[in-house]
Amino acid sequence: MDETKILLPESQIPTHWYNVVSDLPAPPSPVLHPGTKKPVTPQDMLPLFPPGLLEQEMSAERWIKIPDEVREIYRLWRPSPLYRARRLERALGTPAKIYYKYEGVSPAGSHKPNTAVPQAYYNKIAGTRRIATETGAGQWGSSIALACKMFGLECTVYMVRVSFGQKPYRKSMMQLWGAKVLASPSDQTNAGRSILARDPASQGSLGIAISEAVEDAATHEDTRYALGSVLNHVCLHQTVIGLEAREQLKIAGDYPDVVIGCHGGGSNFAGIAFPFVADKAAGKAVRIMAVEPTSCPTLTKGVYAFDYGDTAQMAPIAKMYTLGHDFMPPGIHAGGLRYHGAAPLVSLLAHHKVIEAKAVGQLACFEAAVQFAGTEGIIPAPESSHAIRAAVDEALQAKAEGKPRTILFNLSGHGHVDMAAYDDYFAGRLEDFEYPAAKVQESLKHLPQVAL
Amino acid sequence: MDETKILLPESQIPTHWYNVVSDLPAPPSPVLHPGTKKPVTPQDMLPLFPPGLLEQEMSAERWIKIPDEVREIYRLWRPSPLYRARRLERALGTPAKIYYKYEGVSPAGSHKPNTAVPQAYYNKIAGTRRIATETGAGQWGSSIALACKMFGLECTVYMVRVSFGQKPYRKSMMQLWGAKVLASPSDQTNAGRSILARDPASQGSLGIAISEAVEDAATHEDTRYALGSVLNHVCLHQTVIGLEAREQLKIAGDYPDVVIGCHGGGSNFAGIAFPFVADKAAGKAVRIMAVEPTSCPTLTKGVYAFDYGDTAQMAPIAKMYTLGHDFMPPGIHAGGLRYHGAAPLVSLLAHHKVIEAKAVGQLACFEAAVQFAGTEGIIPAPESSHAIRAAVDEALQAKAEGKPRTILFNLSGHGHVDMAAYDDYFAGRLEDFEYPAAKVQESLKHLPQVAL
Repeated sequence: MDETKILLPESQIPTHWYNVVSDLPAPPSPVLHPGTKKPVTPQDMLPLFPPGLLEQEMSAERWIKIPDEVREIYRLWRPSPLYRARRLERALGTPAKIYYKYEGVSPAGSHKPNTAVPQAYYNKIAGTRRIATETGAGQWGSSIALACKMFGLECTVYMVRVSFGQKPYRKSMMQLWGAKVLASPSDQTNAGRSILARDPASQGSLGIAISEAVEDAATHEDTRYALGSVLNHVCLHQTVIGLEAREQLKIAGDYPDVVIGCHGGGSNFAGIAFPFVADKAAGKAVRIMAVEPTSCPTLTKGVYAFDYGDTAQMAPIAKMYTLGHDFMPPGIHAGGLRYHGAAPLVSLLAHHKVIEAKAVGQLACFEAAVQFAGTEGIIPAPESSHAIRAAVDEALQAKAEGKPRTILFNLSGHGHVDMAAYDDYFAGRLEDFEYPAAKVQESLKHLPQVAL
Repeated sequence: MDETKILLPESQIPTHWYNVVSDLPAPPSPVLHPGTKKPVTPQDMLPLFPPGLLEQEMSAERWIKIPDEVREIYRLWRPSPLYRARRLERALGTPAKIYYKYEGVSPAGSHKPNTAVPQAYYNKIAGTRRIATETGAGQWGSSIALACKMFGLECTVYMVRVSFGQKPYRKSMMQLWGAKVLASPSDQTNAGRSILARDPASQGSLGIAISEAVEDAATHEDTRYALGSVLNHVCLHQTVIGLEAREQLKIAGDYPDVVIGCHGGGSNFAGIAFPFVADKAAGKAVRIMAVEPTSCPTLTKGVYAFDYGDTAQMAPIAKMYTLGHDFMPPGIHAGGLRYHGAAPLVSLLAHHKVIEAKAVGQLACFEAAVQFAGTEGIIPAPESSHAIRAAVDEALQAKAEGKPRTILFNLSGHGHVDMAAYDDYFAGRLEDFEYPAAKVQESLKHLPQVAL
């Protein structure tokens, strides 16, 4: 077995998603309505999400069938390759084996289409005509635009104004796939107009963009909302990553000692990790590690508590690790890792120590990404570089101990559309940022009071 | 056989490149020294190219072994997938089968690393310390930077100044892979300084950048030059594309009626086409089509004659289709298709009607690219869109005739770094440009007088 890339035929695209709810160490907490603070009902959510997705959001079934129409589109890029990073291993002089699952092969260049496609599908069969969503850096917006195009849905993306200006290529990708892209705050929603009235020069935030997209969906009969991370059904869809990786490692005759994913809202991490959580629940010895930026240390410095999903306190309240819903992270380049909260499922697993978490500074991440690009060739997305940093650290530790170790990480996307971040790194314009504990304490004073 | 992607294992990366010189309908013409206008000798070229590449440049051997060190790096992305474009076929309602070979899976996002890697390798074993080269839009520059990084060579890229400003992401990729990128004209060479003395605001041209890179290599003992297209050895290296595609079509139980590649200098076209030229020479019925922009119609409107390889008349003189070395193409977005000449091997095959050529306007190309991205997902590079246009036209013709047709085209790269081109297209800022025949006639008056 000396392949660089371990490939699977399309017949081995998973037939079912794996639902980690069936293997949790404790029952998940209910999600609460932001107004009543009572558990949300499917009726509350039906204006926003189609029945197929709501069912998955609430499901405790272990395996959920992937519709043929979704697998048909997955075939455009799945199964994604599993690489053995031999050139990186040699450069590090490590006895460790490093494997990475590469999700940058999707048309949008990241793992996001794994959930965008089923989200568009379930909307299509529910009669949705248009999807409204928000995007920060643009990875999610471009993926849902692609998926809507595939199923003939219209798509409106509220893009955080600062990214709208700074990430023109992502905006162009959305437009190419037929989406209407609006800089948020926009004048199309009450939420947007009220922000603009107070601050006409507002650069926007993900929280504001979420408010706009949700309002758009809630006030239009034929329109529903879509979210690219955090929610149970999003994590569910991403499990194709880990399911494939496990099969590919079998072909290589290997099993990981440690499984690593970068962590923002939690979806790419859940994708690589959850199938190994199942193994761990069944008694396998495997470490599972979420890697986040020190500038947004949700899992390592936040608290496990009920909090709003968004800044505007309009999204449901969920039990999760949070830095406080009014937390404002600094403008690091890994735009996908700047969420104040974390997926409730990931949070529960972290709280019960099924998974571990680690925070890394962005300079060390870019350093690892540059070494990776120089050995393996692929230019990583800034988000993915966090997983690389942790994988390299594991490999160096194995070297220091003189012991073998098998490392698997998820390379969630390529960085061709994020080259400005590398420019800033090489020009010395980036610095590390440790989020001050006192500031977290301040944010945490604003957590909602709930009866549970 | 209903796979969307036809994959080969790494063991089926070709072991040899195919040299079309063994199947030409006439012997190739000699290449002439720009000063003496006598055939160039290996001695003339040794300051610029290492022996391994010069040997290949002159070789008539049918098969040339690919060094293990090169195949080892090819494994990072090769064999590239062959796709059956079922969703595009359905959208067109055509009875034709459309296959495309996708070269955008390389770390640089195009076919260029197929030759960059062996060029760096042969330089490395010849003791070259540094490679100097030029780049226009940056596809080549980023690929040779990657390859130099892989073999521990230094790399200096003279990048046409207008692209240096307009294509910052390509520049960043080169820098990430360790190359030094200079805006051309630069103050580092006599060629650059003399241009700047006359026109300090010069935006540069590929011709000027070539002159700078050649001068750099010729004046530094430890430095050699590298070219990303046109030359025989470059076309040779790219034949891995067509060799793989032929094997993949065998798996699908198919053989193409027509093979299509976009054409600038000729390398990606040669890559997909030459192995089928071998089949045609052996009696197979197959049409082979080069597709160029109407704004730079070298094969369709140029003449087959001896001309300089560069504007500055410093590069060797070769027999090829040319629009005249002082031809200045308009600034279309397919920057890789703006060369005044064509690969001598492609030119000879076109002159003897072994291959056919077609020119298409850029608006029709972008239209096809948008349809392609909306059905197949992948966003094509503007260059590759020319091949898509021709493939779609073939499929529509098959539909009009109500007859099946098997079409193979090369999707030479993705467009993630070229989204500005799509913006311009959607904003209506692009127009078609037919190069006026009178202007070609004017350029052709300046062809060199040679004794042959």
